Amino acid sequence: MYTKTDIVNIAGKLFSERGYHGTSMRDLAKVLAVRGATLYSHVESKEEMLWEIVNRAADEFLAAAAAVPQDSSPEERLRLLVHGHLDVIARELPYATVFFHEWQFLEPSLREQIKERRDAYEQHFRRVIEDGIEQGCFQAEDARVATLFVLSALNWTYQWFRPDGSLTIEQLAEQYNALIQRSLKADI
Amino acid sequence: MYTKTDIVNIAGKLFSERGYHGTSMRDLAKVLAVRGATLYSHVESKEEMLWEIVNRAADEFLAAAAAVPQDSSPEERLRLLVHGHLDVIARELPYATVFFHEWQFLEPSLREQIKERRDAYEQHFRRVIEDGIEQGCFQAEDARVATLFVLSALNWTYQWFRPDGSLTIEQLAEQYNALIQRSLKADI
Repeated sequence: MYTKTDIVNIAGKLFSERGYHGTSMRDLAKVLAVRGATLYSHVESKEEMLWEIVNRAADEFLAAAAAVPQDSSPEERLRLLVHGHLDVIARELPYATVFFHEWQFLEPSLREQIKERRDAYEQHFRRVIEDGIEQGCFQAEDARVATLFVLSALNWTYQWFRPDGSLTIEQLAEQYNALIQRSLKADI
Repeated sequence: MYTKTDIVNIAGKLFSERGYHGTSMRDLAKVLAVRGATLYSHVESKEEMLWEIVNRAADEFLAAAAAVPQDSSPEERLRLLVHGHLDVIARELPYATVFFHEWQFLEPSLREQIKERRDAYEQHFRRVIEDGIEQGCFQAEDARVATLFVLSALNWTYQWFRPDGSLTIEQLAEQYNALIQRSLKADI
Protein backbone atom coordinates (compact mmCIF):
# COMPACT_ATOMS: atom_id res chain seq x y z
CA MET A 1 0.00 0.00 0.00
CA TYR A 2 1.21 3.47 -0.88
CA THR A 3 0.68 6.65 1.09
CA LYS A 4 0.07 9.93 -0.71
CA THR A 5 3.65 10.94 0.17
CA ASP A 6 5.04 7.82 -1.55
CA ILE A 7 3.03 8.59 -4.67
CA VAL A 8 4.14 12.23 -4.78
CA ASN A 9 7.76 11.11 -4.29
CA ILE A 10 7.58 8.72 -7.23
CA ALA A 11 5.83 11.41 -9.30
CA GLY A 12 8.69 13.79 -8.43
CA LYS A 13 11.20 11.27 -9.69
CA LEU A 14 9.29 10.70 -12.95
CA PHE A 15 8.69 14.43 -13.56
CA SER A 16 12.39 15.12 -12.97
CA GLU A 17 13.43 12.44 -15.48
CA ARG A 18 10.78 12.80 -18.20
CA GLY A 19 9.39 16.27 -17.58
CA TYR A 20 5.90 17.10 -16.33
CA HIS A 21 4.34 16.98 -19.78
CA GLY A 22 6.32 13.85 -20.61
CA THR A 23 4.75 11.93 -17.69
CA SER A 24 1.13 10.76 -17.78
CA MET A 25 -1.01 9.53 -14.89
CA ARG A 26 -0.94 6.19 -16.74
CA ASP A 27 2.90 6.15 -16.56
CA LEU A 28 2.71 6.84 -12.85
CA ALA A 29 0.13 4.09 -12.26
CA LYS A 30 2.34 1.69 -14.24
CA VAL A 31 5.45 2.45 -12.17
CA LEU A 32 3.44 2.06 -8.96
CA ALA A 33 1.78 -1.08 -10.37
CA VAL A 34 -1.67 0.14 -9.33
CA ARG A 35 -4.84 0.83 -11.29
CA GLY A 36 -5.81 4.37 -12.26
CA ALA A 37 -8.75 4.32 -9.84
CA THR A 38 -6.41 3.49 -6.95
CA LEU A 39 -4.12 6.37 -7.94
CA TYR A 40 -7.02 8.83 -8.10
CA SER A 41 -8.20 7.77 -4.64
CA HIS A 42 -4.92 9.28 -3.32
CA VAL A 43 -4.31 12.26 -5.57
CA GLU A 44 -6.67 14.54 -7.41
CA SER A 45 -4.63 15.31 -10.50
CA LYS A 46 -1.17 15.52 -12.03
CA GLU A 47 -1.19 19.26 -11.41
CA GLU A 48 -1.91 18.75 -7.69
CA MET A 49 1.27 16.66 -7.45
CA LEU A 50 3.31 19.22 -9.39
CA TRP A 51 2.10 21.86 -6.93
CA GLU A 52 3.02 19.71 -3.89
CA ILE A 53 6.51 19.04 -5.25
CA VAL A 54 7.29 22.60 -6.28
CA ASN A 55 5.85 24.01 -3.08
CA ARG A 56 7.82 21.60 -0.89
CA ALA A 57 11.05 22.55 -2.67
CA ALA A 58 10.19 26.21 -2.03
CA ASP A 59 9.59 25.35 1.66
CA GLU A 60 13.03 23.77 1.89
CA PHE A 61 14.87 26.66 0.24
CA LEU A 62 13.06 29.23 2.39
CA ALA A 63 13.67 27.23 5.59
CA ALA A 64 17.40 27.03 4.80
CA ALA A 65 17.56 30.81 4.28
CA ALA A 66 15.49 31.53 7.42
CA ALA A 67 17.95 29.49 9.51
CA VAL A 68 20.81 31.92 8.77
CA PRO A 69 21.49 34.11 11.85
CA GLN A 70 20.91 37.74 10.93
CA ASP A 71 23.53 39.02 13.38
CA SER A 72 26.44 37.29 11.61
CA SER A 73 28.73 39.15 9.18
CA PRO A 74 27.63 39.41 5.52
CA GLU A 75 30.44 37.00 4.54
CA GLU A 76 29.25 34.41 7.04
CA ARG A 77 25.59 34.85 6.11
CA LEU A 78 26.45 34.46 2.42
CA ARG A 79 28.51 31.36 3.20
CA LEU A 80 25.55 29.83 5.03
CA LEU A 81 23.13 30.74 2.21
CA VAL A 82 25.44 29.08 -0.36
CA HIS A 83 25.80 25.92 1.74
CA GLY A 84 22.07 25.83 2.53
CA HIS A 85 21.09 26.18 -1.13
CA LEU A 86 23.40 23.43 -2.36
CA ASP A 87 22.39 21.23 0.54
CA VAL A 88 18.71 21.43 -0.48
CA ILE A 89 19.61 20.62 -4.10
CA ALA A 90 21.70 17.59 -3.06
CA ARG A 91 19.14 16.35 -0.54
CA GLU A 92 16.08 16.89 -2.73
CA LEU A 93 17.51 16.50 -6.24
CA PRO A 94 14.33 15.25 -7.98
CA TYR A 95 12.17 17.86 -6.21
CA ALA A 96 14.68 20.64 -6.90
CA THR A 97 14.84 19.57 -10.56
CA VAL A 98 11.06 19.76 -10.88
CA PHE A 99 11.09 23.09 -9.00
CA PHE A 100 13.60 24.66 -11.41
CA HIS A 101 12.44 22.95 -14.56
CA GLU A 102 8.69 22.44 -14.40
CA TRP A 103 7.26 25.18 -12.17
CA GLN A 104 6.28 27.14 -15.30
CA PHE A 105 3.64 24.49 -16.06
CA LEU A 106 1.64 25.31 -12.92
CA GLU A 107 -1.63 27.12 -13.58
CA PRO A 108 -1.28 30.92 -13.43
CA SER A 109 -2.53 31.49 -9.84
CA LEU A 110 -0.24 28.79 -8.41
CA ARG A 111 2.65 29.96 -10.57
CA GLU A 112 2.15 33.42 -9.12
CA GLN A 113 2.40 32.02 -5.58
CA ILE A 114 5.66 30.26 -6.42
CA LYS A 115 7.00 33.39 -8.07
CA GLU A 116 6.36 35.30 -4.84
CA ARG A 117 8.18 32.64 -2.82
CA ARG A 118 11.11 32.70 -5.26
CA ASP A 119 11.26 36.48 -4.99
CA ALA A 120 11.24 36.25 -1.18
CA TYR A 121 14.09 33.74 -1.34
CA GLU A 122 16.07 35.93 -3.75
CA GLN A 123 15.67 38.81 -1.30
CA HIS A 124 17.71 36.88 1.31
CA PHE A 125 20.66 36.89 -1.10
CA ARG A 126 20.06 40.45 -2.24
CA ARG A 127 19.95 41.76 1.34
CA VAL A 128 23.18 40.09 2.37
CA ILE A 129 24.97 41.45 -0.72
CA GLU A 130 23.59 44.95 -0.10
CA ASP A 131 24.55 44.77 3.59
CA GLY A 132 28.07 43.70 2.58
CA ILE A 133 28.38 46.60 0.13
CA GLU A 134 27.15 49.03 2.80
CA GLN A 135 29.59 47.65 5.36
CA GLY A 136 32.47 47.80 2.86
CA CYS A 137 33.29 44.08 2.70
CA PHE A 138 31.59 43.47 -0.70
CA GLN A 139 31.54 45.38 -3.97
CA ALA A 140 29.27 45.08 -7.00
CA GLU A 141 28.31 47.48 -9.76
CA ASP A 142 24.66 46.47 -9.35
CA ALA A 143 23.51 44.38 -6.37
CA ARG A 144 20.60 42.95 -8.40
CA VAL A 145 22.88 41.59 -11.12
CA ALA A 146 25.31 40.25 -8.49
CA THR A 147 22.39 38.47 -6.77
CA LEU A 148 21.25 36.92 -10.06
CA PHE A 149 24.85 35.90 -10.81
CA VAL A 150 25.19 34.07 -7.49
CA LEU A 151 21.78 32.40 -7.74
CA SER A 152 22.39 31.42 -11.37
CA ALA A 153 25.66 29.70 -10.45
CA LEU A 154 23.88 27.89 -7.61
CA ASN A 155 20.67 26.94 -9.43
CA TRP A 156 22.28 25.32 -12.46
CA THR A 157 24.10 22.79 -10.25
CA TYR A 158 20.94 20.62 -10.28
CA GLN A 159 21.85 19.91 -13.91
CA TRP A 160 25.25 18.42 -13.26
CA PHE A 161 25.73 17.65 -9.55
CA ARG A 162 25.20 13.96 -8.73
CA PRO A 163 25.12 12.93 -5.04
CA ASP A 164 26.88 9.66 -5.92
CA GLY A 165 29.71 11.41 -7.83
CA SER A 166 33.29 11.89 -6.63
CA LEU A 167 32.64 15.47 -5.45
CA THR A 168 30.68 15.66 -2.19
CA ILE A 169 28.16 18.43 -1.65
CA GLU A 170 30.34 19.83 1.16
CA GLN A 171 33.36 20.02 -1.17
CA LEU A 172 31.26 21.65 -3.86
CA ALA A 173 29.78 24.15 -1.37
CA GLU A 174 33.23 25.10 -0.07
CA GLN A 175 34.63 25.70 -3.55
CA TYR A 176 31.51 27.54 -4.67
CA ASN A 177 31.64 29.68 -1.57
CA ALA A 178 35.30 30.58 -2.19
CA LEU A 179 34.52 31.57 -5.80
CA ILE A 180 31.43 33.58 -4.83
CA GLN A 181 33.11 35.38 -1.92
CA ARG A 182 36.02 36.38 -4.15
CA SER A 183 33.67 37.58 -6.91
CA LEU A 184 32.12 40.03 -4.40
CA LYS A 185 35.04 40.89 -2.15
CA ALA A 186 35.77 44.62 -1.93
CA ASP A 187 39.20 45.82 -3.10
CA ILE A 188 41.31 46.70 -0.08
CA MET B 1 4.03 29.97 -47.76
CA TYR B 2 6.43 28.88 -45.08
CA THR B 3 9.96 27.64 -45.58
CA LYS B 4 11.34 24.86 -43.41
CA THR B 5 13.38 27.50 -41.53
CA ASP B 6 10.21 29.46 -40.69
CA ILE B 7 8.56 26.32 -39.36
CA VAL B 8 11.56 25.35 -37.24
CA ASN B 9 11.72 28.92 -35.88
CA ILE B 10 8.07 28.83 -34.80
CA ALA B 11 8.59 25.34 -33.34
CA GLY B 12 11.55 26.73 -31.35
CA LYS B 13 9.35 29.46 -29.95
CA LEU B 14 6.61 27.00 -28.96
CA PHE B 15 9.02 24.46 -27.46
CA SER B 16 10.67 27.23 -25.43
CA GLU B 17 7.32 28.42 -24.05
CA ARG B 18 5.45 25.14 -23.53
CA GLY B 19 8.22 22.56 -23.49
CA TYR B 20 8.90 19.91 -26.12
CA HIS B 21 6.44 17.43 -24.64
CA GLY B 22 3.91 20.20 -24.06
CA THR B 23 3.82 21.05 -27.80
CA SER B 24 2.10 18.79 -30.33
CA MET B 25 2.41 18.83 -34.11
CA ARG B 26 -1.26 19.82 -34.06
CA ASP B 27 -0.41 22.91 -31.91
CA LEU B 28 2.29 23.84 -34.40
CA ALA B 29 -0.04 23.40 -37.40
CA LYS B 30 -2.62 25.57 -35.61
CA VAL B 31 -0.16 28.41 -34.96
CA LEU B 32 1.02 28.24 -38.56
CA ALA B 33 -2.61 27.97 -39.76
CA VAL B 34 -1.74 25.08 -42.04
CA ARG B 35 -3.04 21.52 -42.25
CA GLY B 36 -1.05 18.64 -40.77
CA ALA B 37 -0.28 17.30 -44.25
CA THR B 38 1.27 20.63 -45.26
CA LEU B 39 3.41 20.60 -42.11
CA TYR B 40 4.62 17.07 -42.76
CA SER B 41 5.59 18.00 -46.32
CA HIS B 42 8.23 20.30 -44.76
CA VAL B 43 9.35 18.44 -41.66
CA GLU B 44 9.56 14.77 -40.87
CA SER B 45 8.76 14.80 -37.16
CA LYS B 46 8.73 16.81 -33.97
CA GLU B 47 12.00 15.19 -33.00
CA GLU B 48 13.66 16.28 -36.24
CA MET B 49 12.82 19.89 -35.35
CA LEU B 50 14.12 19.47 -31.79
CA TRP B 51 17.36 18.17 -33.24
CA GLU B 52 17.68 21.11 -35.69
CA ILE B 53 17.06 23.63 -32.92
CA VAL B 54 19.40 22.09 -30.37
CA ASN B 55 22.08 21.50 -32.97
CA ARG B 56 21.90 25.06 -34.28
CA ALA B 57 22.26 26.42 -30.75
CA ALA B 58 25.32 24.19 -30.31
CA ASP B 59 26.70 25.55 -33.63
CA GLU B 60 26.31 29.10 -32.37
CA PHE B 61 27.98 28.48 -29.00
CA LEU B 62 30.89 26.62 -30.63
CA ALA B 63 31.33 29.31 -33.31
CA ALA B 64 31.48 32.01 -30.62
CA ALA B 65 34.16 30.07 -28.72
CA ALA B 66 36.14 29.30 -31.90
CA ALA B 67 36.29 33.03 -32.71
CA VAL B 68 38.36 33.76 -29.56
CA PRO B 69 42.02 34.40 -30.54
CA GLN B 70 44.19 31.80 -28.85
CA ASP B 71 47.18 34.15 -28.53
CA SER B 72 45.39 36.60 -26.20
CA SER B 73 45.88 36.53 -22.42
CA PRO B 74 43.71 34.14 -20.37
CA GLU B 75 41.81 37.14 -18.93
CA GLU B 76 41.02 38.47 -22.40
CA ARG B 77 40.07 35.03 -23.73
CA LEU B 78 37.76 34.49 -20.76
CA ARG B 79 36.22 37.93 -21.27
CA LEU B 80 35.50 37.07 -24.90
CA LEU B 81 34.05 33.66 -23.98
CA VAL B 82 31.71 35.31 -21.43
CA HIS B 83 30.57 37.95 -23.91
CA GLY B 84 30.19 35.38 -26.70
CA HIS B 85 28.09 33.04 -24.55
CA LEU B 86 25.71 35.75 -23.36
CA ASP B 87 25.49 37.16 -26.86
CA VAL B 88 24.28 33.79 -28.21
CA ILE B 89 21.70 33.52 -25.41
CA ALA B 90 20.38 37.03 -26.07
CA ARG B 91 20.36 36.62 -29.86
CA GLU B 92 18.86 33.13 -29.90
CA LEU B 93 16.79 33.10 -26.71
CA PRO B 94 14.12 30.56 -27.80
CA TYR B 95 16.76 28.27 -29.34
CA ALA B 96 19.04 28.59 -26.32
CA THR B 97 16.07 27.84 -24.02
CA VAL B 98 15.27 24.67 -25.96
CA PHE B 99 18.97 23.77 -26.00
CA PHE B 100 19.30 24.03 -22.21
CA HIS B 101 15.86 22.77 -21.30
CA GLU B 102 14.77 20.16 -23.83
CA TRP B 103 17.93 18.54 -25.22
CA GLN B 104 17.41 15.61 -22.82
CA PHE B 105 14.34 14.57 -24.84
CA LEU B 106 16.44 13.81 -27.94
CA GLU B 107 16.76 10.12 -28.71
CA PRO B 108 19.91 8.57 -27.17
CA SER B 109 22.20 8.67 -30.24
CA LEU B 110 21.41 12.34 -30.94
CA ARG B 111 21.66 13.18 -27.25
CA GLU B 112 25.12 11.65 -27.26
CA GLN B 113 26.16 13.87 -30.18
CA ILE B 114 24.97 16.97 -28.32
CA LYS B 115 26.71 15.85 -25.16
CA GLU B 116 29.97 15.63 -27.11
CA ARG B 117 29.46 19.13 -28.50
CA ARG B 118 28.68 20.46 -25.01
CA ASP B 119 31.82 18.82 -23.67
CA ALA B 120 33.88 20.37 -26.49
CA TYR B 121 32.41 23.76 -25.63
CA GLU B 122 33.10 23.30 -21.92
CA GLN B 123 36.73 22.52 -22.80
CA HIS B 124 37.19 26.04 -24.20
CA PHE B 125 36.38 27.42 -20.73
CA ARG B 126 38.36 24.77 -18.91
CA ARG B 127 41.49 25.40 -21.02
CA VAL B 128 41.45 29.14 -20.49
CA ILE B 129 41.06 28.68 -16.72
CA GLU B 130 43.88 26.12 -16.64
CA ASP B 131 46.11 28.37 -18.77
CA GLY B 132 45.40 31.25 -16.38
CA ILE B 133 46.29 29.12 -13.35
CA GLU B 134 49.51 27.98 -15.05
CA GLN B 135 50.45 31.54 -15.95
CA GLY B 136 49.68 32.75 -12.43
CA CYS B 137 46.86 35.17 -13.24
CA PHE B 138 44.01 32.86 -12.06
CA GLN B 139 43.57 30.63 -9.03
CA ALA B 140 41.08 27.83 -8.33
CA GLU B 141 41.11 24.84 -6.02
CA ASP B 142 39.82 22.65 -8.85
CA ALA B 143 39.71 23.92 -12.44
CA ARG B 144 36.80 21.58 -13.26
CA VAL B 145 34.60 23.00 -10.49
CA ALA B 146 35.61 26.56 -11.43
CA THR B 147 34.64 25.83 -15.07
CA LEU B 148 31.25 24.46 -13.99
CA PHE B 149 30.75 27.48 -11.72
CA VAL B 150 31.36 29.93 -14.59
CA LEU B 151 29.19 27.99 -17.06
CA SER B 152 26.41 27.57 -14.49
CA ALA B 153 26.29 31.33 -13.86
CA LEU B 154 26.19 31.91 -17.63
CA ASN B 155 23.71 29.19 -18.61
CA TRP B 156 21.00 30.08 -16.12
CA THR B 157 20.69 33.60 -17.57
CA TYR B 158 18.32 32.20 -20.23
CA GLN B 159 15.81 31.89 -17.38
CA TRP B 160 15.74 35.53 -16.42
CA PHE B 161 17.43 37.69 -19.07
CA ARG B 162 14.94 39.43 -21.36
CA PRO B 163 16.29 41.29 -24.44
CA ASP B 164 13.58 43.94 -24.02
CA GLY B 165 14.39 44.54 -20.31
CA SER B 166 16.22 47.56 -18.87
CA LEU B 167 19.58 45.73 -18.73
CA THR B 168 21.24 45.34 -22.15
CA ILE B 169 23.20 42.21 -22.96
CA GLU B 170 26.40 44.29 -23.13
CA GLN B 171 25.80 45.65 -19.61
CA LEU B 172 25.05 42.17 -18.34
CA ALA B 173 28.16 40.74 -20.02
CA GLU B 174 30.38 43.47 -18.55
CA GLN B 175 29.09 42.93 -15.02
CA TYR B 176 29.22 39.15 -15.36
CA ASN B 177 32.76 39.39 -16.68
CA ALA B 178 33.84 41.56 -13.73
CA LEU B 179 32.32 39.07 -11.23
CA ILE B 180 33.82 36.03 -13.00
CA GLN B 181 37.29 37.58 -13.39
CA ARG B 182 37.34 38.50 -9.70
CA SER B 183 36.19 35.01 -8.66
CA LEU B 184 39.25 33.55 -10.43
CA LYS B 185 41.86 36.28 -9.98
CA ALA B 186 45.04 35.07 -8.26
CA ASP B 187 45.99 36.73 -4.97
CA ILE B 188 48.89 39.09 -5.53
